[in-house]
Amino acid sequence: MAIRKLYGNLNSPATLKVMSCLFEHDLEFEFVSVDLAAGENRKKEFLAMNPFGQVPVYQDGDIIQFESRAILRSMAHEHAHSMNGRELICFDSRMQAIVANWIDVEDHKFEPPACQLAIEYLVKPKKELEPDQAVVDEAQAKLAKVLDVYEGQLAKHKYIAMDKYTIADVLHLPNLQNLMNTPSRRLIESRPHVRAWCAEILARPTWVKVLEMQKKAQA
Amino acid sequence: MAIRKLYGNLNSPATLKVMSCLFEHDLEFEFVSVDLAAGENRKKEFLAMNPFGQVPVYQDGDIIQFESRAILRSMAHEHAHSMNGRELICFDSRMQAIVANWIDVEDHKFEPPACQLAIEYLVKPKKELEPDQAVVDEAQAKLAKVLDVYEGQLAKHKYIAMDKYTIADVLHLPNLQNLMNTPSRRLIESRPHVRAWCAEILARPTWVKVLEMQKKAQA
Ligand SMILES: N[C@@H](CCC(=O)N[C@@H](CS)C(=O)NCC(=O)O)C(=O)O
Ligand SMILES: N[C@@H](CCC(=O)N[C@@H](CS)C(=O)NCC(=O)O)C(=O)O
Repeated sequence: MAIRKLYGNLNSPATLKVMSCLFEHDLEFEFVSVDLAAGENRKKEFLAMNPFGQVPVYQDGDIIQFESRAILRSMAHEHAHSMNGRELICFDSRMQAIVANWIDVEDHKFEPPACQLAIEYLVKPKKELEPDQAVVDEAQAKLAKVLDVYEGQLAKHKYIAMDKYTIADVLHLPNLQNLMNTPSRRLIESRPHVRAWCAEILARPTWVKVLEMQKKAQA
Repeated sequence: MAIRKLYGNLNSPATLKVMSCLFEHDLEFEFVSVDLAAGENRKKEFLAMNPFGQVPVYQDGDIIQFESRAILRSMAHEHAHSMNGRELICFDSRMQAIVANWIDVEDHKFEPPACQLAIEYLVKPKKELEPDQAVVDEAQAKLAKVLDVYEGQLAKHKYIAMDKYTIADVLHLPNLQNLMNTPSRRLIESRPHVRAWCAEILARPTWVKVLEMQKKAQA
């Protein structure tokens, strides 16, 4: 039995965040695909792991966690020592405070409009529905404001929280990837520092590995 | 000049979360009231601290943070050593993972419907507006589901994350207090473990101190 199990879905941004972090830390794990369309996340055994019935669920030995950001935080803390200076958090509590700040910015400011745009542009067409232009406009206006702040931050720092790659960056990957597959890509491309950051982090080998897993599963 | 400054508003749940945590840690700080109605949070000097123009902002020496949960996390970590066993986090990274999980539950599941109910029942009447029953019904249905999960968790543990009071509990205080001042109180009172937890944490001297500050400011 694998000690680490990731229950999730390869179309779920939150699942891909955890997967990317597992690859960054070079951790072995078993991926257990949960079929959301078939309601596997509403079954009794699944609800026993996450009473809210959502993916991802991460099991590491006898600890079960079900919020992606909490999973990334504790994984990055627990395995920091094995990273030889490549750790995705800071040991200094004041520097870690800054990472924590940008994790919450991703959570509260970036993800909501980014997800809305993915729904309108990527999910709806699969169901042969048209994007709702009013929803798109509002989400784009919100995202533009957030990316203006990011542009200022990334003019000062190489990565979103500081000059080092942290879990605050990891958390942006799936939604940035989705945005790059929509017309909202121009909001990223028109901001030089955001564009450079996005290109660099999406090219990380650990993220490429996530995309390859996704592709293989779809094939 | 005080080393710690909390810029905020006494009607802002996020501000009160930070204040309660400051009192728990017995930390001296200066409270700087920010008049949101007058747009003080949109002024240049404020935006230099938080580009998103929201309260709270917490300044501790040269570190500025502006997301309440990130502020609580780093405060609780930084000052844990001075707490003599009363610390609001866990030193064991696997136990801290559980605290992190419930912090995100508060953020994603509990706060949204609780805030909506506060708007309908507490904010609107101040502006002589009627609550929107459809919004109330939907928010109550969502909150009831969350409180069902809480009831199960609190049957097993004294506090929301574990048998010890942690920042995951602190984060619930302002919205629980607001809910108790609305008809949605019955969702809490009808669940015995939730009711007992709520009564106990709202009676903490550090929270009573926050309410006293609020009352004094309104007088
Ligand atoms: N805050 C959670 C969000 C989890 C979430 O939204 N999961 C979605 C997929 S990305 C899901 O399970 N949806 C199915 C459902 O809600 O029934 C996290 O970050 O882990
Ligand atoms: N996620 C932020 C939320 C901050 C927030 O929503 N602040 C509100 C008051 S509770 C605010 O400043 N509102 C004024 C505005 O948005 O213009 C936190 O937890 O600190």
